[in-house]
Order: sequence, then structure tokens, then C-alpha cells
Amino acid sequence: MLVAAAIFCLKRKGLRVLVTGGAGFVGSHLVDRLVARGDSVIVVDNLFTGRKENVMHHFGNPNFEMIRHDVVEPILLEVDQIYHLACPASPVHYKYNPVKTIKTNVVGTLNMLGLAKRIGARFLLTSTSEVYGDPLQHPQVETYWGNVNPIGVRSCYDEGKRTAETLTMDYHRGANLEVRIARIFNTYGPRMCIDDGRVVSNFVAQALRKEPLTVYGDGKQTRSFQYVSDLVEGLMRLMEGDHIGPFNLGNPGEFTMLELAKVVQDTIDPNARIEFRENTQDDPHKRKPDITKAKEQLGWEPKIALRDGLPLMVTDFRKRIFGDQDSATTATEGQ
Amino acid sequence: MLVAAAIFCLKRKGLRVLVTGGAGFVGSHLVDRLVARGDSVIVVDNLFTGRKENVMHHFGNPNFEMIRHDVVEPILLEVDQIYHLACPASPVHYKYNPVKTIKTNVVGTLNMLGLAKRIGARFLLTSTSEVYGDPLQHPQVETYWGNVNPIGVRSCYDEGKRTAETLTMDYHRGANLEVRIARIFNTYGPRMCIDDGRVVSNFVAQALRKEPLTVYGDGKQTRSFQYVSDLVEGLMRLMEGDHIGPFNLGNPGEFTMLELAKVVQDTIDPNARIEFRENTQDDPHKRKPDITKAKEQLGWEPKIALRDGLPLMVTDFRKRIFGDQDSATTATEGQ
Repeated sequence: MLVAAAIFCLKRKGLRVLVTGGAGFVGSHLVDRLVARGDSVIVVDNLFTGRKENVMHHFGNPNFEMIRHDVVEPILLEVDQIYHLACPASPVHYKYNPVKTIKTNVVGTLNMLGLAKRIGARFLLTSTSEVYGDPLQHPQVETYWGNVNPIGVRSCYDEGKRTAETLTMDYHRGANLEVRIARIFNTYGPRMCIDDGRVVSNFVAQALRKEPLTVYGDGKQTRSFQYVSDLVEGLMRLMEGDHIGPFNLGNPGEFTMLELAKVVQDTIDPNARIEFRENTQDDPHKRKPDITKAKEQLGWEPKIALRDGLPLMVTDFRKRIFGDQDSATTATEGQ
Repeated sequence: MLVAAAIFCLKRKGLRVLVTGGAGFVGSHLVDRLVARGDSVIVVDNLFTGRKENVMHHFGNPNFEMIRHDVVEPILLEVDQIYHLACPASPVHYKYNPVKTIKTNVVGTLNMLGLAKRIGARFLLTSTSEVYGDPLQHPQVETYWGNVNPIGVRSCYDEGKRTAETLTMDYHRGANLEVRIARIFNTYGPRMCIDDGRVVSNFVAQALRKEPLTVYGDGKQTRSFQYVSDLVEGLMRLMEGDHIGPFNLGNPGEFTMLELAKVVQDTIDPNARIEFRENTQDDPHKRKPDITKAKEQLGWEPKIALRDGLPLMVTDFRKRIFGDQDSATTATEGQ
């Protein structure tokens, strides 16, 4: 009887969920949704690119906790689900210390998989469209093996994530762990790092600061841009669903860099100038998800068009760049 | 004066060389050459696939030392050069514990790169033709990025080695470490593991045991086979030379599995039967090195033809399988 009572005590109403990298751009939006639905959420973040400001609005909530911890070191927690997002995701950040990036992707993922195995939690890896490299197939389906340079300056991220996927599947095959793999395509929205060198944040920050928009190469390389709430919805459906993946999560709407510059001009400043610069090494020429699999198996597809999502991000960037009085940290528009 | 004398004491005639995986098939032949030229050689090996028997003939030599150690754990040593070979290399062995294979390739390489940086040693990574996966270019040049499945059952080795290459280049770019990268193609010779599932050792052992030679698929997939002394010569030229690589080290002579079976029949037993079996997943269809770069920059090319090298391996296998009195451990024919 005492044992039964004790076990009964362990039962909780909502799920206990760990979000590594939960103070980051995508992570913090995911945390908002999980907290809103009544889960107990633990964020583990070393705050290398994450920001306390992104989750501070949950600090008074007993169902929320933030631990300053680097996933390269093991940690013991008791949860039901692990969303593993921890890793710098923009070239500026992941190239800063390439060896650390690989450690985060490989040793960090190993630690979180080990934790998931120990406590019987379901594990979701946020991988990336970068596993396709500079793709020779267009659009990219999940069965495409990719075209990645193993010894280039981006490889710390690309190869690191590919190895993280391998580890995830090896734990699934070898230890029967419940795993999920998402391959995330370009995402934008409020709380994005302002100076991370990514094209959307670059253009928006430049237009707001009255600087010219810098386009690399001829501006004809394409990207697809997904609003962050669409991605968060996809991640949660993937975690709750029955399929392992990998699943492409991205918006198949394809824009050239020049088209994107035009949308930013239309949204912020019609007089913004465009400046061309030499392209960086290894920059993929095109990237566009085939999301047939996610549509069929997760019933998911993005809902927010670029011209609708961009203004929501601009509002947040304006507040953070110009220090408006209204706090930007609770920006949840469009979700 | 005392300091000068102390430093003078530290000077040695030959080089101090660390060979990780030095008790393995390739490693032990490399050790033989290094010891023969007067180097002080330290072997680090966990003996997972390596065998003490392969290096026991050096045990009385003061210039030789073997340490039973797993490179997944750090180790501190003082040497001038590090040949980093430690990793199970046959599918049977590297699939045995895929997570451990990734740890060996990533954490093991990290540890050895960290050691090299600390002591200012030159570091050579033995990578693999597996980084090309199931190649869409034939033959493979070093600039080809490969066609590797990130989530398959071979990925622990393929992706692990790709990430090891990335780490090696990141240490070179970031810490100015002197590095060398070799991409090794199929190699055979005395001291190869007898039951490692590789096609040459399989066929030779089967023919000797009067079992049918098992050919997977239609037998038309091709491989190139390099005799171990040719590889060792290439590794040493690469280490001593001025070029980083990656360099393909392999024999461009291309054989189908059926042609190889024929050579084995001619060498061992003309009456050996051939048996066809279903192919394994992810098995590459063809693999053949373009060695132009190694020829031009290292002045290296293989010298031993398959019909000349195979009998040397057969002699060794015969001794080990049938337990002949003559020791097989000093087999250095053909070097």
C-alpha cells in the first residue's frame, strides 16, 4: 500500500518535458506552447546563443525551471520527453569554435540520448536542412543522402548534425529508444538573434538601421523561409505522433535573395539600398523542402506566408534595436 | 649549464612515434617499418580487434612499448608524430557497437588531436574510402564530397570518419596543428582478421577451409585491393611529406567480386565452389581510387599486384587457421 501510494505521488497531470536550448530562438517559442498547454517544462541552456530574456516571463511559474548547463556535460533529470535543440545554429555562431560545435552535436547528443535511455523518455533531435549540404536534388526529400563537404568550414555543423542523426538512429536500433528526427529548414520570427549573419535577420536589421541590404553572390541563390510558430507546431506533432522521421520541417515557398530583399523593402523601407558582396565558401545554392512526408504522416504544413510573418518579426526587432519601452520577450504574435 | 644539459638529455636520435591501433592489421605492419628504421615506437591499443601476437616480436626491444588503452579516454605521452589508426574497420566489428564506433572516431580523434596540440606533434588521421559512401563519381577523386546515408547501419563508421576528418581540419585551421589525412581503400595482407566479414579474408579463409566462397548480390560490384606494404609506404610518405591531404591510398586495379573469387581459386583451390547470397544494405556498388594526387605530391603508387600479394596472405592465413608450428606473427614478406 505504501509503495502504491508512493508511486501514485509520482504521477503527474501534465507531461514533464526537457527542452535543451530552450532559451534560444526556436526553443523559447516551443517552451511557450508547452507551458501554455500545462506541461512542466525544464530548460537546459548554456546561454551561448540563448538569452534569459526569451524565457523570463515564465520565471514565476512553478511549472517552469531553467538550468544553466552545457549539454557537453552529462546531466540527470526525470522527464517524459526530451526536445534536443541545443546547438548554435547560425554560421556566425557555429564557426566561432568549430571543435566546440562538433562536441555539442556529438557529445551533447550522446549525453541526451543516454539520459533518454536511462529514464525511458521519448527523444526528439532537431537536425537541419544542412545535412543535405549543397544539394544536387531539388527540392530535397528525406531519402536524399546529401552533398556535404567533409573538410570545409561549415562541416563542424553539417557533419556534426549528420553524426547526431546517426547516433539517434543507433540508439533507436540498439536500445529501442523512442526517437524522432526533424530536419529544420530556414526559420525566422521574433527573438531571432539580431546579428547572427542569417539573411532574414540581416536584412531586417539593416533596413531598420537604414543600412544597405547586403546580398552575397548574384542574389539568385534561393532559400525557403518558415515562420517560427509553424515550425513549433511541426515539432510538437512529430513528438506526439507515431513516426520516427526524419521529417523535413520547412516552408516550401522558395525565394531568391533578391526577392527576399524586395519583401523586406516593402515591409520596412521602400528606399532601402541593396549592396552586393562576394559569396562565402560552401554556401548552398538552393534549398527547398519537399514536405510530402510531413503532410501525409504528421498532417502538418506551414500556414504563415512570408509577407504575413515578416511584420511580426519586424515589430520585435524594432523594439530590441531601438529599445522601445514595451518588452519584446512576450512576443507570441501569429501563434 | 644544468638546464642546457637537461634539455640535451631530452634529445633523441630517432623519432618518437605513437601508433594508435598499432596492434591491428595495418598498424602492426607500420610499427614493423618504424621500428626497423630506428624510431622509438609506442603502440596504444585496446585490443578490441588488435592482437598482441601482431607486435609480440618487438616486446624485447627497448625502442618499443605497448600500452593497453582505449583512445576514448585521454592519455598523456611525449612523442613527435602520431599515426592515429585506432578504430574497428570491418563492418562486422564496427557494427558490433555502433555508438562505441562513433565515440572512437569522434571522441578518440578529439583526444589524439588534443594530445598532438599539447605536445606539438604532427598528426596523421587514417580515414577511409567509406567517406565516399556509395559513390556517384567513378573513380573517386579527393575533391568528391561523397554519397553517404546519414541514418543507415554503416553510418557509425562512415559519418564517424567524416566527422574525424572535419575535426582534423578544424584543429589545423584553428590551432595551426600539422595534420595529414589519408583515405584508405580496401587493403589485404598477413595479420588481417580471419573472420571480419571482408571479402578478401572471407574468400581466403573459405577456400582454405574447403567451404564455398560466398558472393553477395550478383558479384559484379567492384573493389580495389591494396597490399598492406604499399599502404604502409604511402602512410609514411604522407607523414614525412609537406602535403596535408586528404590523399587516396589504394590500388586502382579494379576487380569484380567474381574476378576476385577466380584469383582466390587460382591461388588456393581451383575446385572451390561459389555460392551467391543476398546483398547487405548500404553496400557500395563500386569503389576505385583516383591516385593522381598521391602520385604527384607524394611520389607514391602501389607496387604489389593482387596475384603477387594474395599468396603472401594465404601463407599467413594457412598458418593461423591450421595452427602450423611456424609463427605467423613475423610475416613481413613483400615489404
